[in-house]
Amino acid sequence: MLSNHLQNGMETAKLLWSRLPNSDAEEDGEAVEELGRYGKSDGTSVESLDYEVIENYAYRQEQAKRGKLYTGYSVAVKWFFALLAGIGTGLAAVFINISVENFAGWKYSLTFDIIQKSYLAGFLVYMLINLALVLSSAYIITNFAPAAAGSGIPEIKGYLNGIDTHGILLFRTLIGKIFGSIGSVGGGLALGKEGPLVHTGACIASLLGQGGTTKYHLSSRWLQVFRSERDRRDLVTCGCAAGVAAAFRAPVGGVLFALEEVTSWWRSQLMWRVFFTSAIVAVVVRTAMGWCKSGKCGHFGSGGFIIWDISDGQEDYSFQELLPMAVIGVIGGLLGALFNQLTIYITHWRRNYLHKKGNRVKIIEVCIVSVITSVISFGLPLFRKCTSCPEADPNSGIECPRPPGMYGNYVNFYCSNKKEYNDLATIFFNTQDDAIRNLFSAKTVHEFSAQSLLTFLVMFYTLAVVTFGTTVPAGQFVPGIMIGSTYGRLVGKFVVSFYERLNIEEGTYALLGAASFLGGSMRMTVSLCVIMVEITNNLKLLPLIMLVLLISKAVGDAFNEGLYEEQARLRGIPLLESRPKYQMRNMTAKEACGNQKVVYFPRVVKVADVLYILRSNNHNGFPVIDHTRSGETLVIGLILRSHLLVLLQSKADFQHSPLPCESRSGTLPIRHNLTEFVKPVSSKGISIHDVHLTADDLEMYIDLAPFLNPSPYVVPEDMSLTKVYNLFRQLGLRHILVVPRASRVIGMITRKDLLIEDNEDSNGVELQSTSVRAEEGDRRKFRRRINAEQPLLDGLLV
Amino acid sequence: MLSNHLQNGMETAKLLWSRLPNSDAEEDGEAVEELGRYGKSDGTSVESLDYEVIENYAYRQEQAKRGKLYTGYSVAVKWFFALLAGIGTGLAAVFINISVENFAGWKYSLTFDIIQKSYLAGFLVYMLINLALVLSSAYIITNFAPAAAGSGIPEIKGYLNGIDTHGILLFRTLIGKIFGSIGSVGGGLALGKEGPLVHTGACIASLLGQGGTTKYHLSSRWLQVFRSERDRRDLVTCGCAAGVAAAFRAPVGGVLFALEEVTSWWRSQLMWRVFFTSAIVAVVVRTAMGWCKSGKCGHFGSGGFIIWDISDGQEDYSFQELLPMAVIGVIGGLLGALFNQLTIYITHWRRNYLHKKGNRVKIIEVCIVSVITSVISFGLPLFRKCTSCPEADPNSGIECPRPPGMYGNYVNFYCSNKKEYNDLATIFFNTQDDAIRNLFSAKTVHEFSAQSLLTFLVMFYTLAVVTFGTTVPAGQFVPGIMIGSTYGRLVGKFVVSFYERLNIEEGTYALLGAASFLGGSMRMTVSLCVIMVEITNNLKLLPLIMLVLLISKAVGDAFNEGLYEEQARLRGIPLLESRPKYQMRNMTAKEACGNQKVVYFPRVVKVADVLYILRSNNHNGFPVIDHTRSGETLVIGLILRSHLLVLLQSKADFQHSPLPCESRSGTLPIRHNLTEFVKPVSSKGISIHDVHLTADDLEMYIDLAPFLNPSPYVVPEDMSLTKVYNLFRQLGLRHILVVPRASRVIGMITRKDLLIEDNEDSNGVELQSTSVRAEEGDRRKFRRRINAEQPLLDGLLV
Repeated sequence: MLSNHLQNGMETAKLLWSRLPNSDAEEDGEAVEELGRYGKSDGTSVESLDYEVIENYAYRQEQAKRGKLYTGYSVAVKWFFALLAGIGTGLAAVFINISVENFAGWKYSLTFDIIQKSYLAGFLVYMLINLALVLSSAYIITNFAPAAAGSGIPEIKGYLNGIDTHGILLFRTLIGKIFGSIGSVGGGLALGKEGPLVHTGACIASLLGQGGTTKYHLSSRWLQVFRSERDRRDLVTCGCAAGVAAAFRAPVGGVLFALEEVTSWWRSQLMWRVFFTSAIVAVVVRTAMGWCKSGKCGHFGSGGFIIWDISDGQEDYSFQELLPMAVIGVIGGLLGALFNQLTIYITHWRRNYLHKKGNRVKIIEVCIVSVITSVISFGLPLFRKCTSCPEADPNSGIECPRPPGMYGNYVNFYCSNKKEYNDLATIFFNTQDDAIRNLFSAKTVHEFSAQSLLTFLVMFYTLAVVTFGTTVPAGQFVPGIMIGSTYGRLVGKFVVSFYERLNIEEGTYALLGAASFLGGSMRMTVSLCVIMVEITNNLKLLPLIMLVLLISKAVGDAFNEGLYEEQARLRGIPLLESRPKYQMRNMTAKEACGNQKVVYFPRVVKVADVLYILRSNNHNGFPVIDHTRSGETLVIGLILRSHLLVLLQSKADFQHSPLPCESRSGTLPIRHNLTEFVKPVSSKGISIHDVHLTADDLEMYIDLAPFLNPSPYVVPEDMSLTKVYNLFRQLGLRHILVVPRASRVIGMITRKDLLIEDNEDSNGVELQSTSVRAEEGDRRKFRRRINAEQPLLDGLLV
Repeated sequence: MLSNHLQNGMETAKLLWSRLPNSDAEEDGEAVEELGRYGKSDGTSVESLDYEVIENYAYRQEQAKRGKLYTGYSVAVKWFFALLAGIGTGLAAVFINISVENFAGWKYSLTFDIIQKSYLAGFLVYMLINLALVLSSAYIITNFAPAAAGSGIPEIKGYLNGIDTHGILLFRTLIGKIFGSIGSVGGGLALGKEGPLVHTGACIASLLGQGGTTKYHLSSRWLQVFRSERDRRDLVTCGCAAGVAAAFRAPVGGVLFALEEVTSWWRSQLMWRVFFTSAIVAVVVRTAMGWCKSGKCGHFGSGGFIIWDISDGQEDYSFQELLPMAVIGVIGGLLGALFNQLTIYITHWRRNYLHKKGNRVKIIEVCIVSVITSVISFGLPLFRKCTSCPEADPNSGIECPRPPGMYGNYVNFYCSNKKEYNDLATIFFNTQDDAIRNLFSAKTVHEFSAQSLLTFLVMFYTLAVVTFGTTVPAGQFVPGIMIGSTYGRLVGKFVVSFYERLNIEEGTYALLGAASFLGGSMRMTVSLCVIMVEITNNLKLLPLIMLVLLISKAVGDAFNEGLYEEQARLRGIPLLESRPKYQMRNMTAKEACGNQKVVYFPRVVKVADVLYILRSNNHNGFPVIDHTRSGETLVIGLILRSHLLVLLQSKADFQHSPLPCESRSGTLPIRHNLTEFVKPVSSKGISIHDVHLTADDLEMYIDLAPFLNPSPYVVPEDMSLTKVYNLFRQLGLRHILVVPRASRVIGMITRKDLLIEDNEDSNGVELQSTSVRAEEGDRRKFRRRINAEQPLLDGLLV
C-alpha cells in the first residue's frame, strides 16, 4: 500500500484534473486532452497554456450547484459568443471595405480629374496618396502592432495547432491589422485584405473569449464560461471562418477553410457553430451592403466586397475545352510553386539582412515598394496604344469607355480618341477588385490584348513577390487571383480563337486560372473550390474548378510545400503535418525520445531543486514520481513548468516538512486562487526571472501532488512512432510519457463498455451537488471530503 | 532478461504488426490504429475484421522492392478507384433515375389516357401498375437481398464507425438495392431513392475495393492495394459521398454529408479524394442528362434528378419574414421529432409481431401499403373541386392546365372545364419530384388552396410513417421534403396574404419548410444546408435555411435523437456518439471494465485451452502475457479471436513442445499464406464450428508471439473515462487495455520530437530493400534476420 499521504494528494489532484475536467457540458470529453497540450518551449514562440487544471475545482462547484440548467446556460453563452464574433467580424469587414473603397475611389477620381490637364501632376498626386497610405500602414505596424504584419494565417494556424505565437491575438494587433490593411490595400500595393480579415476575425473572437482586452473586463460569470482554453480555441476557429466568410462572402467556404486549413482536430458540434458564425457574417455584410446601396457609404457600392458574379457567363463546356483547362492547371502549379519558392528566398533575405537593421529600414523598404508600384501601374499603361471600342451591345450593359468616376471595363486612359480605351490601364490602373471583375467579365471577348496581359502578368507577379513579407498586413488571395486570372484569360483568348464555334467566355478561363494559381500556391483544395464557387456564384463550374485545382496542387506539390506551411516553418511554428513521415514507421516511441535524460520530480520537492531544474532546462512538463512503501516507484502524474512557476511565485504552498502534507479531511488544502493558474492568450506568462525567493524559501518544500495532472497519456516504449504520432495529433497533445510495457492487464475496454445509458446520470449529479453545497464557503481554504464511494486509487495502490 | 525465445517471437510479431503496418504510403499512420478495431461480437452484427496483421509482411517485401515508386503507384491506384467509384455510382444513379422516370411517366400517361374515358378503369390500371412494381421490389428484397431493405444509411454509418453488419456490402445487396428502389419509387410509395443511392454508392465502392464479388476477381497486384481495411473504408466513404452527390447533384453536399454524418474520423487527404469522387459523379450525371436531352431516354427529361432550380425565385427577404420562418422551424422540429418517434414505435411493432411471421407477410404488408397509397393519391383528388386557371403570364412559361403528357403545374384532373385544374392532383397525382417542383415553384401564388395542402400534409405524413420500415429500399429525403414543403407553402400562403406589399414567393417558404422537416428529423446541419442550397441552386437563401435548420434541430433534439441514430440503435448497431456521456467524467477506465475477469493467453498455449477459451466466451481480442526469467509477468500484446481461429483451422503452427519455437535466424518461421488472415467485407469469417481438431491436435501447442499485435493501446487504470472515450473514438479503436500505473518514465515525447526531417529517409529505405532482397524466395517459409541496428526490446527486457 502506498502511504495515505500520497493517496490524499492524488485524490485532490484527481478532483482538480480528471474527474470534472471541462468547463462546459456541450462537448464533454475533448477538454481533457487539452490538459496535456504542453511542449518544450523554444526560442521563437511561447506555447500556449491550457489552464483547465485548477479551476475545474471551481467549475465543479459551479456546475454541481447549477446542474443541468448550467449546461444549457453554458451552451447558450457559447452560441451567443459565436453570434458576437460573427457580428464583430462582419462589421470589421464592412468597415475595412468601406474605408478601402473610399480611399481608393477618391484617389482614382482625383487622379482622373487631374490627368485631364496634366499627366505628370496626376502621377505625382497618385503616387503621393499611395505613399501616404502605405506609410501610415507601415508606421502603425512597426511602432504599434508588429504582430499584425503579413497575413496572419500561418500564426492562426499555429495557434489552433497548439502553438501560441506571442502577440498575435492582442487588442493592439487587431487595431493594427484593421487600420494597417486599410492603408496597405488602399495604397494600391500588390496584396489583399482577405488574409488580414481572417486574422481580424480570429482576434475579435479571441478577445471576446477573454472578455475584452484586460483580464477582468466582463463580469466573472461571463468569463468563467470561456476560461477553458478549448472553448477559446473553438471561438477562434469560429472567428477564422467568419473572417473568410466576410472576406469572400462565402459562408460555406469559410467553414471548410476552418476545417481544412486551420484546425488540427475537429468535432461536428463545433462545425455547426462555425457555420452559424459564418452565416451571421453573411447576414451582417448583406445588411450593410443593402444599407450602402442608397449611397450613404461614398464610393463603396457595386465594388467593395469581392464577389465576382459570373452567373451570367458560360453555362456549358465541351470536352474539347478540357485540354486547355488542364494546361491552365499545370501553369498554375508551376507559377504557384515558383511563387512559394521566391517568397521563401526573399523572406530569408529580409530576415537575415534587411529587417535586422531596425524599423526605419522596414518603413523605407515599404515606401520604395509603394513608389515602384505606383510608377509601374501608372507608367506602363502610358506606353500602351489605345484600342478603339468594340461595337456596343445594348443588352450587355457594358459601356465603352466607362463613364468617368465609375467602375467598370474599358478605361479611357491616355487615349487620343474619346471612343477608345486602354486595355492595360483597365487592369493596372484600377483597384484590384475591379481589375479582377474586368478579367472575369463575360461578353467582353478580345477586350484585352495578349501583349497587355503578358506585360501585366510579369509585372504584377514581380510586384507580388517583392511586396510579400514587407511590414504591412498583406493577404495573398487577391494578388493570387489577379495573377491567375491574367494567364487564365490569356489561355482563354487562344481557346476562343481556336475553337471558334463554341460558346466560350474568356472570363471562365480567367476564373479557372485564378483557381489554379491559388491551388498551386496555397494547396488548399475543398475550401478553395467552394470559395471560388461562392465568389463567382456559379455552381456549374464546380467540376472544372476541381479539375484545375487537382492538377495545379499535384504539380505544385512536386516542388515544395504550400505557402502557409512554408511561412509557418520560416517563422519557427512547428506545425504537425496531417500524416507522419515515412521513416516513422521504422521507429519506436523510445527512439523518438533519443538519449535525453528524463528530468522528473519527486512528489515532495525542495524549492531550491525546483528552481535549479527549471533553470537548467527549458522543458515545459515534468513527470512526478513517488515511492510506494515497499520502495517501488510509481509515476503519479505530470506537472507543468508554468504551474511550478506560479507555485514558486506565490509561495503559498511552501512547507517546512519534507513529508507529504496531510489534512484530516483526506484532501489537501488548496491555498491558491484558481485564477492564478490562468494565463491569458498571447502573453508570455510568468518567467523564471519573475520569481524572487529568499534563502529561507529555498530550504522549504512543496508537495506537488495537488497540482499535477494525474493521468497524462502514456505509450509503451516499443510502440511504432506512426502510432504515437497519430495519437499526438488526433488528440492534440503536448506531452506523451513513454513508459515500460505493462506487467499485467487489469481490464479491457471495448465499444460496448462505452455505451452507457443516460439514466444513471441524475443520481451522480445529485450526489455531487449535495456534498459540495454543504461545504461552500471560503474558496481559498476550501476542503473537500473524499467520497467514500469513489475509491480511486485502491486498485493502483496494491 | 527475458528469454531469447520471447524476444525472437516478439521480433517477428513486430515485423508483422507495427513496423510497416500499413499498406500504402499516402496516409501512413492511421492504418495502425485500425489494427485495434475489434470488440466483442454481439448477436445482431458481425464486426468487421481489419486484417493488416499478417500481410504487412508481404507489403514489406513489396514495398521494400519498389520503394518510393510503389508509393506513387499506390496513390495513383487509389485515385483511380475513387474515379471508378464515382463513375459507377453516377451510372447507377442515372440508370435508377431513367428507369423510375420511365415507369412513372408511362404509368401516368397511360392513366391519363384511360381516364378520358373511364375514371374507374384508370384507377384500376394505375393501382395495378403500382402494385406490380412494388410487388417486384418486395419480392427481390425478401428473396434475394434482405440487406437491401430500408435506406441503408444507418448500416453504412455503422460500417464506417467500425461495425460490419452482415451482408450490407455484398453484390446481391447492390443489385437488390438498385432494382428494388426502381420498383418501390416507380410504384409511387411514399419513399425516396436518395438513401438507397447512398447505399448503392457505398456498395459499388466496397465491391471495387474488394476487386469484385469473388475474392480474387482482379489480379493480385490490384488487390494488394486495397487489402487494407482502412483503404476500403476510405473508398466506401467516397462511395457514400458519391451517392449523395448523385442523388441530389450536390457534390459539395456529398462531401459534407460524408464528413458530418457517416464517418467517425477524418483526414484532410481523404476529403480531397472524396470531393474528387463527388465531382466525377457530377460530370457523369451531367453528361448523361445532356445525352438524354435529345430524347433518347424516354420520359426521362426535365424531371428525373431532383434539382429544383429556384434561382429565379425570391431574391430578397425582409426582417419581418423572420418570424414566420422561425415558426416554420418550430413546426419542422415538432413534426420531425414526431416522425422519428412514430417510426420507432412502428419499427418495434413490425419487428416484434409482423416480420416474425416470414417473408409472405412482409410482401403482403407492402402490397397493402401500395394499394392504400394508390387509393389515396387517386381517390382524394376526385373529391376536390377544380379551380379555374389564373390569368396566363406569358413570361413565366407556365401553362394552365399543363399540356397532357407533360410535367408541370396545374394538372387538369376530374375537372368539368378545360381551363381548370385540380390543385390536390397537382401534388398528389404526380411523381414526388414533380410534386416538389410544383410546391417550390415561384410565380404561382395561390395555386394551392390551404385545404388541399392540409389534406395532403396529413395523408402523406401518415403514408410516410406507415411506409417506413416495409421491406423495400426506402429513402426518407424526398418524403421529408414533400412533407416539409407542404406546410412551408401553407405558411407561405399566410405570409403572402399578410405582408401584401413585399415580394414574397410561396416557393421560398416551401423550401424552408423542407429544410426544417429534414432538420427536425435527420438532425443533419451543415451538409443538409449545403444540399438544400445545391438542389435549389440559390446561394442567397443560405442564411435563411440555416436559421430554420438551427431552430428545427434544436426543437427536435429536445424530444429524441436523429432518425439515423434511432434506427441504428433499433438495429443494434452500437454507434459511438461524438461526445462522451455526462457521467463518464466521474468514472475511471477501471470502472468501465467492471468486474469482468480478463481472459488472457500465455505466450505458448495448448490447443485444447485455446478451443476452450474461445468457446466459453465471445470476446474478440485477448491479451497475451508472458513471463520473464525473473518470474515477472509482461503483457506482450493482443491476439484476435479471428486469427486464433485461422491458426486452429490451418494447424500449420501447431508444435509439440510447450516452449517457444525458435529458429537460428532469430525470427520465427511463418507457415501461413498471408491471405489466410484476410476476411472479406460483410462475411462472417471462420466460425468456431468450422474448426475440426483431432485428439492429437488438442494436445499440441501454439506459440502466439508471431501473430499478436505487439503494441495495442493502453491506458492507466485510473484515467478518466471521458479521456478513454475520446481516445477510443478519435482513433477508431476496438480494444483498449487497461493496465496499472507505470513505475517509471523512459522518456517524454513532445511536438519537437515528432518533427523529423525527410532527409533521414533514403537511408532507411535502402537498408530494408537490400536486406529483404537477399532473402527473397519461398514466401511461406520466409525468414528474416533481426536487423542488428534495431534492438527493439532491449530497453524493455532489462
